[in-house]
Amino acid sequence: MLATPISQQMAVGIDIGGTNTVFGIVDHRGEISYRGAISTKKHANIKDYLDELHEAILPALNQFGIDKLIKGIGIGAPNGNYYTGKIEYAPNLPWKGEIPLADLIQEKFGLPAALTNDANAAAVGEMTYGAAKGMKDFIMITLGTGVGSGIVINGELVYGHDGFAGELGHTIIIPGGRKHWSTGAHGSLETYTSATGVTLTAIELLNKYKDKPSILRNYDEDEIDSRLIYDCAIQGDELAKETYAFTGEILGRALANFVMFSSPEAIILFGGLCKAGSLIFQPAKKTMEENLLPIFQNKVQIIPSELKESDAAILGASALVWELK
Amino acid sequence: MLATPISQQMAVGIDIGGTNTVFGIVDHRGEISYRGAISTKKHANIKDYLDELHEAILPALNQFGIDKLIKGIGIGAPNGNYYTGKIEYAPNLPWKGEIPLADLIQEKFGLPAALTNDANAAAVGEMTYGAAKGMKDFIMITLGTGVGSGIVINGELVYGHDGFAGELGHTIIIPGGRKHWSTGAHGSLETYTSATGVTLTAIELLNKYKDKPSILRNYDEDEIDSRLIYDCAIQGDELAKETYAFTGEILGRALANFVMFSSPEAIILFGGLCKAGSLIFQPAKKTMEENLLPIFQNKVQIIPSELKESDAAILGASALVWELK
Repeated sequence: MLATPISQQMAVGIDIGGTNTVFGIVDHRGEISYRGAISTKKHANIKDYLDELHEAILPALNQFGIDKLIKGIGIGAPNGNYYTGKIEYAPNLPWKGEIPLADLIQEKFGLPAALTNDANAAAVGEMTYGAAKGMKDFIMITLGTGVGSGIVINGELVYGHDGFAGELGHTIIIPGGRKHWSTGAHGSLETYTSATGVTLTAIELLNKYKDKPSILRNYDEDEIDSRLIYDCAIQGDELAKETYAFTGEILGRALANFVMFSSPEAIILFGGLCKAGSLIFQPAKKTMEENLLPIFQNKVQIIPSELKESDAAILGASALVWELK
Repeated sequence: MLATPISQQMAVGIDIGGTNTVFGIVDHRGEISYRGAISTKKHANIKDYLDELHEAILPALNQFGIDKLIKGIGIGAPNGNYYTGKIEYAPNLPWKGEIPLADLIQEKFGLPAALTNDANAAAVGEMTYGAAKGMKDFIMITLGTGVGSGIVINGELVYGHDGFAGELGHTIIIPGGRKHWSTGAHGSLETYTSATGVTLTAIELLNKYKDKPSILRNYDEDEIDSRLIYDCAIQGDELAKETYAFTGEILGRALANFVMFSSPEAIILFGGLCKAGSLIFQPAKKTMEENLLPIFQNKVQIIPSELKESDAAILGASALVWELK
């Protein structure tokens, strides 16, 4: 049998979320030719979950020829550890403790598998198919429900000594600042630049500037979320815009510190908050530059992800496969 | 001619300081078999400087056989850029602008040469001969007149996109905090954990707690320096000890953020301030742990350098040679 040319190889990308698992078959250029999803939540038993996943993916594998074109399976999951191949104590998944998922998938599918957390997968995806193509040094920050990060140095993802490197959302930017709803830490990046953080900032500003009119005042506090704030901001609502300005400033402070650590070529931002565009990019850039040592100034781009948000998780997971040795 | 066995190869290490340049010939195990020094300051002309350096090192090279045993020359210098081999705008050296020092040395000596800044050289030295032997992921922090850093990830020094990575002394730990005497930034690590920072903290505490007795009150403010504070602290002076406790706490906050970036196996501390031992290590460790996400807690050692302070600069510079491809 002749070997398959590398350019024709395909990868399976699986992204495991707390509610659903999505997957796809991806080629070298990031084209997704098959997509599917199953429920994560309903499977308290990992064996049942793997059975359903296998059944769902099997038709696609047969179509492509499991032993010929598919190079392997990449998996993005919360608390996924690249070194051990285990999901370790993920608070929002149905399986407790340590789950040796890479091994289980490898066994079930008879294909090499690699696992990492979702933010790391996003960074590899961006490097393989997106805005970081050709970059050897960049930092990816995901601004979503939480704040995740993936760091690439010398063309390789930084996993650190134990596989858990790159928790930039939990670095403390404002000592003694806002208390994190889950970790209890004060002033971490995530308390300000996540969807929840933005919502808390808007509510704080509404209470602080009682005389300032805002569309947001038409809603109860518990109706305010990051989507509503975004809608108000693009309608020109001053208080909503100020919410983004503040968020961008905190982000900029954090980015300056990250740049002085690893001196990347670019910072790539991904996730819901990026939709606000210059409302957040512009203050982030300005504050970052102000906090940088001169040798770092005006060198680092802050750019949005080039991956479609709905595809990014599958693409990121699939990109792990091309890194398999 | 037979090739020299690698174990018998030697390296030249040159450390360029603002006042003096020191050098030595070093073997694979970090034994320095020849040492020397020339003035840096007196040579406004780089050519004269290189002539004197060459003349000073030549006897040693002849002794070891320039074309046989010496593998190359490593140079540590302020603002030394590994990628370009240039010293770039070093404020405290006699030569202005960009000096292509690695090329100049290579030409003058007919040996391969590598250049980096002093803190990066210290990190490579520690990895080759010292406390970080066998470690692939660690962060070296030098606590001296200034605060420098060298970061090792996957067994390689992090230079970043432009060669300037690892300026952790300039990361902002206390936004709006103490103003840096030279950069003007507020609350950077160096403003608190350098020799100058410690001195400023002691003076602040003396003024804040006027009723608190201290040996330091026997001195004028401009007589107080980090050495005096150290002497007082080991004599049990409470205010001097508190100065270290505060310094350690700030350091611990910074270290927590660094750990959540690259998840190192260890933090290695080097420089004058380390002499204070547990007075600074203990609060640094405690505060670091308090600020870490649980998955990072109780995993990262904080350890002192194992290189003799007087040898470290030469050893660090020489260690660059073993990394030459």
